[in-house]
Amino acid sequence: MRSESNNTMRLTKNSKLVMIGDSITDAGRAQPDGEGLGDALGHGYVALVDALLGATYPYHPIRIINKGTGGNTVRDLKRRWQADVIDLKPDFVSIMIGINDVWRQFDSPKQVDSHVYIEEYEATLNDLIARTKSAGATVILMTPFYIESNRDDAMRAQMDRYGEVVKRLALTHDSILVDTQAGFDSILSHIYSATLCWDRVHPSKTGHMAIARAFLNALDFEW
Amino acid sequence: MRSESNNTMRLTKNSKLVMIGDSITDAGRAQPDGEGLGDALGHGYVALVDALLGATYPYHPIRIINKGTGGNTVRDLKRRWQADVIDLKPDFVSIMIGINDVWRQFDSPKQVDSHVYIEEYEATLNDLIARTKSAGATVILMTPFYIESNRDDAMRAQMDRYGEVVKRLALTHDSILVDTQAGFDSILSHIYSATLCWDRVHPSKTGHMAIARAFLNALDFEW
Amino acid sequence: MRSESNNTMRLTKNSKLVMIGDSITDAGRAQPDGEGLGDALGHGYVALVDALLGATYPYHPIRIINKGTGGNTVRDLKRRWQADVIDLKPDFVSIMIGINDVWRQFDSPKQVDSHVYIEEYEATLNDLIARTKSAGATVILMTPFYIESNRDDAMRAQMDRYGEVVKRLALTHDSILVDTQAGFDSILSHIYSATLCWDRVHPSKTGHMAIARAFLNALDFEW
Amino acid sequence: MRSESNNTMRLTKNSKLVMIGDSITDAGRAQPDGEGLGDALGHGYVALVDALLGATYPYHPIRIINKGTGGNTVRDLKRRWQADVIDLKPDFVSIMIGINDVWRQFDSPKQVDSHVYIEEYEATLNDLIARTKSAGATVILMTPFYIESNRDDAMRAQMDRYGEVVKRLALTHDSILVDTQAGFDSILSHIYSATLCWDRVHPSKTGHMAIARAFLNALDFEW
Amino acid sequence: MRSESNNTMRLTKNSKLVMIGDSITDAGRAQPDGEGLGDALGHGYVALVDALLGATYPYHPIRIINKGTGGNTVRDLKRRWQADVIDLKPDFVSIMIGINDVWRQFDSPKQVDSHVYIEEYEATLNDLIARTKSAGATVILMTPFYIESNRDDAMRAQMDRYGEVVKRLALTHDSILVDTQAGFDSILSHIYSATLCWDRVHPSKTGHMAIARAFLNALDFEW
Amino acid sequence: MRSESNNTMRLTKNSKLVMIGDSITDAGRAQPDGEGLGDALGHGYVALVDALLGATYPYHPIRIINKGTGGNTVRDLKRRWQADVIDLKPDFVSIMIGINDVWRQFDSPKQVDSHVYIEEYEATLNDLIARTKSAGATVILMTPFYIESNRDDAMRAQMDRYGEVVKRLALTHDSILVDTQAGFDSILSHIYSATLCWDRVHPSKTGHMAIARAFLNALDFEW
Amino acid sequence: MRSESNNTMRLTKNSKLVMIGDSITDAGRAQPDGEGLGDALGHGYVALVDALLGATYPYHPIRIINKGTGGNTVRDLKRRWQADVIDLKPDFVSIMIGINDVWRQFDSPKQVDSHVYIEEYEATLNDLIARTKSAGATVILMTPFYIESNRDDAMRAQMDRYGEVVKRLALTHDSILVDTQAGFDSILSHIYSATLCWDRVHPSKTGHMAIARAFLNALDFEW
Amino acid sequence: MRSESNNTMRLTKNSKLVMIGDSITDAGRAQPDGEGLGDALGHGYVALVDALLGATYPYHPIRIINKGTGGNTVRDLKRRWQADVIDLKPDFVSIMIGINDVWRQFDSPKQVDSHVYIEEYEATLNDLIARTKSAGATVILMTPFYIESNRDDAMRAQMDRYGEVVKRLALTHDSILVDTQAGFDSILSHIYSATLCWDRVHPSKTGHMAIARAFLNALDFEW
Repeated sequence: MRSESNNTMRLTKNSKLVMIGDSITDAGRAQPDGEGLGDALGHGYVALVDALLGATYPYHPIRIINKGTGGNTVRDLKRRWQADVIDLKPDFVSIMIGINDVWRQFDSPKQVDSHVYIEEYEATLNDLIARTKSAGATVILMTPFYIESNRDDAMRAQMDRYGEVVKRLALTHDSILVDTQAGFDSILSHIYSATLCWDRVHPSKTGHMAIARAFLNALDFEW
Repeated sequence: MRSESNNTMRLTKNSKLVMIGDSITDAGRAQPDGEGLGDALGHGYVALVDALLGATYPYHPIRIINKGTGGNTVRDLKRRWQADVIDLKPDFVSIMIGINDVWRQFDSPKQVDSHVYIEEYEATLNDLIARTKSAGATVILMTPFYIESNRDDAMRAQMDRYGEVVKRLALTHDSILVDTQAGFDSILSHIYSATLCWDRVHPSKTGHMAIARAFLNALDFEW
Repeated sequence: MRSESNNTMRLTKNSKLVMIGDSITDAGRAQPDGEGLGDALGHGYVALVDALLGATYPYHPIRIINKGTGGNTVRDLKRRWQADVIDLKPDFVSIMIGINDVWRQFDSPKQVDSHVYIEEYEATLNDLIARTKSAGATVILMTPFYIESNRDDAMRAQMDRYGEVVKRLALTHDSILVDTQAGFDSILSHIYSATLCWDRVHPSKTGHMAIARAFLNALDFEW
Repeated sequence: MRSESNNTMRLTKNSKLVMIGDSITDAGRAQPDGEGLGDALGHGYVALVDALLGATYPYHPIRIINKGTGGNTVRDLKRRWQADVIDLKPDFVSIMIGINDVWRQFDSPKQVDSHVYIEEYEATLNDLIARTKSAGATVILMTPFYIESNRDDAMRAQMDRYGEVVKRLALTHDSILVDTQAGFDSILSHIYSATLCWDRVHPSKTGHMAIARAFLNALDFEW
Repeated sequence: MRSESNNTMRLTKNSKLVMIGDSITDAGRAQPDGEGLGDALGHGYVALVDALLGATYPYHPIRIINKGTGGNTVRDLKRRWQADVIDLKPDFVSIMIGINDVWRQFDSPKQVDSHVYIEEYEATLNDLIARTKSAGATVILMTPFYIESNRDDAMRAQMDRYGEVVKRLALTHDSILVDTQAGFDSILSHIYSATLCWDRVHPSKTGHMAIARAFLNALDFEW
Repeated sequence: MRSESNNTMRLTKNSKLVMIGDSITDAGRAQPDGEGLGDALGHGYVALVDALLGATYPYHPIRIINKGTGGNTVRDLKRRWQADVIDLKPDFVSIMIGINDVWRQFDSPKQVDSHVYIEEYEATLNDLIARTKSAGATVILMTPFYIESNRDDAMRAQMDRYGEVVKRLALTHDSILVDTQAGFDSILSHIYSATLCWDRVHPSKTGHMAIARAFLNALDFEW
Repeated sequence: MRSESNNTMRLTKNSKLVMIGDSITDAGRAQPDGEGLGDALGHGYVALVDALLGATYPYHPIRIINKGTGGNTVRDLKRRWQADVIDLKPDFVSIMIGINDVWRQFDSPKQVDSHVYIEEYEATLNDLIARTKSAGATVILMTPFYIESNRDDAMRAQMDRYGEVVKRLALTHDSILVDTQAGFDSILSHIYSATLCWDRVHPSKTGHMAIARAFLNALDFEW
Repeated sequence: MRSESNNTMRLTKNSKLVMIGDSITDAGRAQPDGEGLGDALGHGYVALVDALLGATYPYHPIRIINKGTGGNTVRDLKRRWQADVIDLKPDFVSIMIGINDVWRQFDSPKQVDSHVYIEEYEATLNDLIARTKSAGATVILMTPFYIESNRDDAMRAQMDRYGEVVKRLALTHDSILVDTQAGFDSILSHIYSATLCWDRVHPSKTGHMAIARAFLNALDFEW
């Protein structure tokens, strides 16, 4: 455990971090608040980030609020951005979105109104980042991912295109970048994707831990 | 509808067909009997085969009994073969097994005692076919499948090896062969696998219909 | 499977088909949308039509939306026609209604306000067809049915009168006609009605398959 | 209400009456005892007989035990006759069986092992009556019924044949006969069968009251 | 069964009868309608009256609607009289109310605002009868009851006072009177109250049959 | 609170008290043990005795085990006396039994095999007391009760006769006597029985407190 | 039992007592009314006070209404004071609040908006007492408590500070004071806190009895 | 992430680790196997250890089996040691036991048969370790803990005595020692115990992460 004095972690002490996204972020969090005792933060990477910070830096409290909602695309985030992000006056906001934007194109090809194509994705995400920065918060951008090692797979290839958008926006906006896809890729070089989950999207606890590690390492967390 | 006189379907009128396998065959069938009113045949390809025959050949009754059990490997079939197949005195027996034999190698790599490797698979299946033929029934062999179009995918490649075993045994034993993997492949050339299911194993109704079609076409069914 | 080039099926590629009716159509579909993954299309003939098309014509996608609602009469359809049909901008609309219009006269003879007599039935159905055609959609009319082989049975005789209305309107409006009652009759000449269902209204999977066959054959579907 | 002195009802005061049969008799009775407070007698004609006797002849107690079991045929009754009838040392035993013996021939034609044909039905029922008389109890025989007014209907015609067996055995054994089918027929001349129930077997409260009336009238009950 | 021609029962053929009251009337009826297939009329005397009429006079249909609501006093009936009685345009209206008006004085003596004393009871009931007659319906008044044979018991004595009010109003308004308390008293001279129910208020099926008998006998019903 | 030094309560410090009886004693206790954290002692007088002792004499622990079982008569107690009393090696044993012995005679008059008449009651109870004393435990006898102020009521009169048996046995065996009926009578001179409970047997919390007071006062408890 | 004539208890006969607070007071009371038959008063000290008064002073009725709500702080009480206290026109009002005001500071240190600090606590409570007195009711103030014997424990020390506020306000307003913390302390000198409950807040039945005793003793109750 | 070559973690690659204990270890694991997909390892430190190893060392698989059972003391472990540990042929066995051994002395002081005193604790644990070593497995001993910072608290002091036993046995048997109490103490110097849990025993996710960290650090895990 780092001593209290030489802590260099990038989340400021006593700051408020809102984590928003889709079902991966949601993971069964309390509705509507996403904060409180028990399982209010859900069972996914958000709860793991909170537990890792709490157990490792007990002298450096970070208030985490989970605002993930299952099934969301960036179009859904836009609808609830004011209430679920800006109104909470966060110091940090992490965003992991895009999986459903891509997935619907592959599992529901006939329902075209449910597809969020890449132009809309980029424009909307860009707008949300800008609004968040204007409100004074630091943005943490997480790439969407697909737990498939074959980069020629049609859906993986498309997910990578959306991931490239996230990386470009992180650069443009000088945001912190968490490359979750890269985190999974380093594991997939050793095990088959089905070990982490059957649907290549909703990870096991090990998969959520991989996301939490990628997140914390991007923030200079030390174990 | 074919007229009653020129019916050439290979299942004999008033015969009894036992269909056995894993969760794909099971599909929520009644326990323990797998036969009766309502949803006793489950919601999968077995029920579709029954419905297609009943609606198309009402003058040519076939008694179908579903003996699929979720999670089964060929090792499990062996344990219950006497009670669930031989004792029922069937005229026809269809077998679709192997998916879990392969899957456990990929989703539970550390639990090696749950893996059924290809030698045990072939020997056991060969034995079950022989016992069934000795009991006077005609055997219908269905290949296991993986709903993934990339034949280089590690689990797809392994499933194909098990499918080759099935094809070889069909030839050896002069059994009827249903190439379910080929049935899926002709669909996967037009749509992405996620449209048929998320886990590449448990198909949607469309996927079950694809299996039922492959099955019936191998029996010279006419719509 | 027909090859992609010589497909003569009457549902246009990439078209949208809304299927509306009572509990036979509903069959446990998702509320309120009647579309999506899993069992959103229910467990009846609508899901079977979708599965048969998907498995047989994977290169020719048809978007199907189930708008059946249990217990509905044509009077109920009228109330929700704008929201559940017109607003969806369908290319094709199938209608199977009339069973409850007749049934209430026989199972609830004292509750006369629940009966929809034949004049109201014809006038309302005529109006709904006209509105649908004006909106640019092709109408597919399905006769209501009663799974009883005795045509002198009081309820069967009444159902046949309503079926005659449907046939007349199909002619008048140049709509596609699906004679579901005829589909059942050809089966009932071989088996007793109780084999298909106990209440002579809600069919087993075999019965739903008979409806799906009648529907698809009217559209020049090839297996 | 008859006065206590001139009561001519055929059930002896303080006697024990066991009523056995299938789901019509069972009607949700308490398991395994079929006797006690609350709904222990179920919701069918047995409970109505008990309530009618209790409300009309409070000075003349009859102990009623419900031993109906859903789905039973006469073959099932035979299996449990010692434990469920003889061991209870009843004074009177009513038997209504045969509906499932017939029904399975019509709703499950392929499952021939579930059919109880008329020879087995007559022989078994004859044997049960003889054993009951030997044990000193008076037997009350109730005809099985089918709530269908068309006597040419295949299943109704078959049910009538089984009913003739019951009438013949009542004569042979000098048992009390309850013609439940006749009770229904007098109602069906005024209303359509669906008013009493959808499946023509499990009656509404009105139908159960019709059975209770037929039963009590055969015993010279006075209102 | 009376023949159709000499039927002298006082409920007119094809008339509508609304039965209103407290939990004894309610008895688990369908909410909000109190009419329809299955158990819509509940499990109490209302359903028994319907079944007895249906089984005995099938040629003389009476439409019965159950509007009982558990816990109601006459004060509650007043609040819903327009919607639950007058708006239904009944031909006959039966009222059994008063048990809770009295009971709360004995089981909740401290909660005086829940007590409906005899002056309010009489005035309100008088008003409801008058409104009903003005609307053209025939009123059937049923006395409230307490299943206790000791007339000196404090609650029984109070219930009898309320019963006297009902009898007086029946005379004043020339309504049909059903003396349910007398119906129970003739049974209680033979058995202890606990045989009919433990709480002396909610009767067993036998008790409900006693009410139904008292009701039908007041209407010149013949078995 | 009494000081620790002058405590004269008759339950010895650190002693074990088994309390046995029917549903009044049971009151939802944990099965099978009747001891432990939470609601293991149930919600009735046993739990109140435990709580009153624990809150008033924290320095004088008494281990209480609830062995009440709903529906029990003295005949049932006899069957489980060895396992549920003797084997626990108690220092004190309280017995409250007899309510069901009497009640079944009044609520189930026809089921005579469920009645325990007074001779069997006395003989059995006498035997249980003797066995308990032989095992070295002090016996506390509680009279059964009926919450009815009218001593001429048939069931109350019978309960009083059983209570007299208990009083006589307490004298004979020099046991501690708790007159629970007297405890209720002093309350019933002020309020109607329905205030304490509807069925005159299962008391409200106030009624259970009345039993607990009678019990503790018989043991010289001081508040 | 005190005789009716020399009763000196401070709650006036036939008066109404509203008891308000957090989950300790609530204890599963009926929502929204907190009054009525069965478990309407919950399972805590409120129900015990009611039962002790009812069993000991049956001639001196006190109407108790439970208005506790789980999780409440004094800030929540303020919001509902008019509806839940003043509008009920009580004669006596007991208040036990403050546990959650303190607890949130210790179990949710990061969620500072959920903390009610001591200045707000005192000002708000003072205001509620004044409003209640103006409405003519006598106020009974109960100290909040923490079931921990170590007075140096950080949360116990803070709870004691809030308890001092309550004592000061009791003096200022001439209210009746119930020192619940003192009640627990006298028990904790004999047993470890875990015997009364695991979380040091929600007491067992013994703990609730300790509160009830402290409450009643402050009102000169005699056993 | 450490590279594959310089991995110095003490759990051997492809080894099997059985983790046994009480409810802290159990944490909702699958019964009876404690291994498999989904939540089979429960929600506590066992699952976190598995996830941390899986995400950090994907090239170094460790098979973990959870054999914790809620409420267990060392006496319970002894009963199931052969079946749940030895028969599994583990390479490593972690044991965390003692919390209930101590707790029962404090929350159930009267139930002395549920207490496991320190002599029995040490002797039994010593025996289990010896048997495990004889079977060829490496033992990892974890101290029991109490999440209370006051070392003078009676239960904390007792838990520390049991912890000393564990440390002594670790030394004697040359086992790996995990000082979980020390892990909690370093956190409790910054936050109040209620932040980690209300009952000072069952920790939040943060508390379980603290145990996992202590465990992994004792095995030279690197993040």
